[in-house]
Amino acid sequence: MSCKVIKVGVVGAGTVGSGTIETLIKRADILKKRCGVRIELAAVAELDAAKAIAAGASKDIIVDDYKKVTENPEIDIVAELIGGTGLAGAIVESALSNGKAVVTANKALLSEKGRPLFALAREKKVPLAFEAAVGGGIPCMLSIREGLNCNSYQSLLGILNGTCNYILTQMTQKGVAYETCLKEAQELGFAEADPTTDVGGFDTGHKLALLSALAFDSWVDFDKMHIEGIDKVDLDDVKFAEKLGYTIKLLAVARPDGDGLFLSVHPALLPNSHTLAGIHGSLNAVSLFGDIVQESVLVGRGAGKFPTASAVIADITQVARMLAFSPEMPSWTPEPEPVYKLLPMSDYTSRYYLRFVVEDETGVLAKITGALGDNNVSIASVNQGENPIGKNAAIMVITHKAKEGDIQKALSAIGGMSFTRQAPVLLRIEE
Amino acid sequence: MSCKVIKVGVVGAGTVGSGTIETLIKRADILKKRCGVRIELAAVAELDAAKAIAAGASKDIIVDDYKKVTENPEIDIVAELIGGTGLAGAIVESALSNGKAVVTANKALLSEKGRPLFALAREKKVPLAFEAAVGGGIPCMLSIREGLNCNSYQSLLGILNGTCNYILTQMTQKGVAYETCLKEAQELGFAEADPTTDVGGFDTGHKLALLSALAFDSWVDFDKMHIEGIDKVDLDDVKFAEKLGYTIKLLAVARPDGDGLFLSVHPALLPNSHTLAGIHGSLNAVSLFGDIVQESVLVGRGAGKFPTASAVIADITQVARMLAFSPEMPSWTPEPEPVYKLLPMSDYTSRYYLRFVVEDETGVLAKITGALGDNNVSIASVNQGENPIGKNAAIMVITHKAKEGDIQKALSAIGGMSFTRQAPVLLRIEE
Repeated sequence: MSCKVIKVGVVGAGTVGSGTIETLIKRADILKKRCGVRIELAAVAELDAAKAIAAGASKDIIVDDYKKVTENPEIDIVAELIGGTGLAGAIVESALSNGKAVVTANKALLSEKGRPLFALAREKKVPLAFEAAVGGGIPCMLSIREGLNCNSYQSLLGILNGTCNYILTQMTQKGVAYETCLKEAQELGFAEADPTTDVGGFDTGHKLALLSALAFDSWVDFDKMHIEGIDKVDLDDVKFAEKLGYTIKLLAVARPDGDGLFLSVHPALLPNSHTLAGIHGSLNAVSLFGDIVQESVLVGRGAGKFPTASAVIADITQVARMLAFSPEMPSWTPEPEPVYKLLPMSDYTSRYYLRFVVEDETGVLAKITGALGDNNVSIASVNQGENPIGKNAAIMVITHKAKEGDIQKALSAIGGMSFTRQAPVLLRIEE
Repeated sequence: MSCKVIKVGVVGAGTVGSGTIETLIKRADILKKRCGVRIELAAVAELDAAKAIAAGASKDIIVDDYKKVTENPEIDIVAELIGGTGLAGAIVESALSNGKAVVTANKALLSEKGRPLFALAREKKVPLAFEAAVGGGIPCMLSIREGLNCNSYQSLLGILNGTCNYILTQMTQKGVAYETCLKEAQELGFAEADPTTDVGGFDTGHKLALLSALAFDSWVDFDKMHIEGIDKVDLDDVKFAEKLGYTIKLLAVARPDGDGLFLSVHPALLPNSHTLAGIHGSLNAVSLFGDIVQESVLVGRGAGKFPTASAVIADITQVARMLAFSPEMPSWTPEPEPVYKLLPMSDYTSRYYLRFVVEDETGVLAKITGALGDNNVSIASVNQGENPIGKNAAIMVITHKAKEGDIQKALSAIGGMSFTRQAPVLLRIEE
């Protein structure tokens, strides 16, 4: 039986690239059977040829210049797997310009410099697919694009960075401080020597930008999003949250409100009954609440050689089927005009966890609760910490639903009071 | 801008049918934008026209005979949403015979009588899609077919029946016996007056047959599968499992072993750290362990008007895109020759939980442990129940990994001993 052939060029044989090469070769027959197209690994661009050979690529398809892939008239799909936002951008642009479909795992590139690349893909009428850029092996892009496509989302919550989730899980389960957990994660290879991109929340932000572009038909520039990392999460807060029945997770949050949309990355308290509260270690998860489907949660490995390769190959096969059978079929690019406008976090509404470190003197509690009340913040519970810090006392407050602008005003007032010994801590409670 | 139009005929305006009709109308513009095709609700076959009208169908498209949909040359896609295995089979057959694509939520029909229907779809080269038949709104079929398509699965575990999961959750969280929980579920509308299909495990079996056909490229006739329900689950076992750190769930299990495949529906003990142990109430979940992607878990509503409609519409839009842009693209039908052969449960290997109700006399424990040892079953822990049943004692045993045939031989021997007062209980432990 004759079978259409689609030729793939892989650029980069690093971790994800070599996982992709190895799996494409190993699963060629099964993929052909399952998708009705023969997917041929026709070129690998990699300066260190030994890496590509170790992954199983035959010598004669290895080239040392990406242009020999992106400008090669034989190649149908280019998989950009080198990462970063410099050369990778040139590779994707060159491939699209030459009318090739592109598959990439590069969240930084797409979220920071995606607009012109998607515009080019739209102009050239070729797919630019990026399942592997968010949630590693989790088929979240496919689910939003196709599986749940009749839904409007009431919320999207994601645990999207395995390093942060690993560190927070260690802090929670072992009761060890952030710095120690980070160091251990670095020694185990779960965190980079410079961990800023992960622990600062930026990687999560890159992924949130892409997820929300799909789920809310609204492209938001990455640099306009609210981003907090886990580097300020104190072990005291983890322990106190635990006592109250909450788990602290670094969340990507997208929440529409009227014609506006909140997009934020922040550490938050989740009730232990929440599905995401049970996602431990380096696992990732995406929780979507659609108005038709209700709750939908997808869980899996967020990174790693093969889990990411699994998603790259899912994109390659879907694009290959399109190229082979329906080159006319439109593929996703962001709406030129966003459906929702980005809302400032001062308008955000949730319950809040607040912690104040204060001098242990009479009347402090009255002043704190007074300042909260003056700013329309209603208190659900107050707890004076069992572990005073030095001569100081810690006061933990859980509020009822409040507007973040009001919370900020109250914190500013309390922060300026003479008994305050540390900047007040604010963590949102997501339900 | 001109846009291709695909015409859909819905057969049945019951719960899922009316949810589908309502959502297709409400989301027509968004679906057009997202999938590039205008999906037109062109006919509804329903004897009780008032139901279709209540869902928003205009009077002039309502017909009283399914053939006016399945034989209508204007209709491209037929959505069979009446359920059952009788008339529904004739509807699907008529639609396929007339060259129409079919979308259905009917797990009983496909798992019990699917072979000739899929053969007909293959012959007529039209899609027969069934995302809504398994896991309600959870995009599990799409994930297996496309998102994870380079994987070979090392296991598939599913919580696929909301009624059973609701009852087991109530038993666990409230400590109430099965019969009471079932009655309450019936009063709340979570269980049918005749609950056999659900609590007997048959509905879960229907879904397992379809899931495994996709995941393992192996169609197994439903009536050959091992099926146990929750009707024999004793509150004592739920409580004892809890003490040991396990939760009892009704699981669909598919586990390959060499060129064979175990397919079974049974209540099992899951360690509380297992993602599926935290899936409570009427939620459903599918856990796939792929050799490339590793763990992948999908969680959501397994039934209900709108969650199921969400999946029906995902299928309709995917099929509509195929019909509009790529009628040549092959769609999934089961392999004529299964890749795996079905294995007997006597070859199944796992750890086991066993409970013996015995006369409280000396030497009993030695005889029980002796019989297990004689049959190559190694014991991990033994516990004499704190709550003796009448004058009798309960002995709970957790085994190391053992072969089920050996366990059965030991239970048969122990069951025949003079001190045994009830048939021994066997529950598998899934990790």
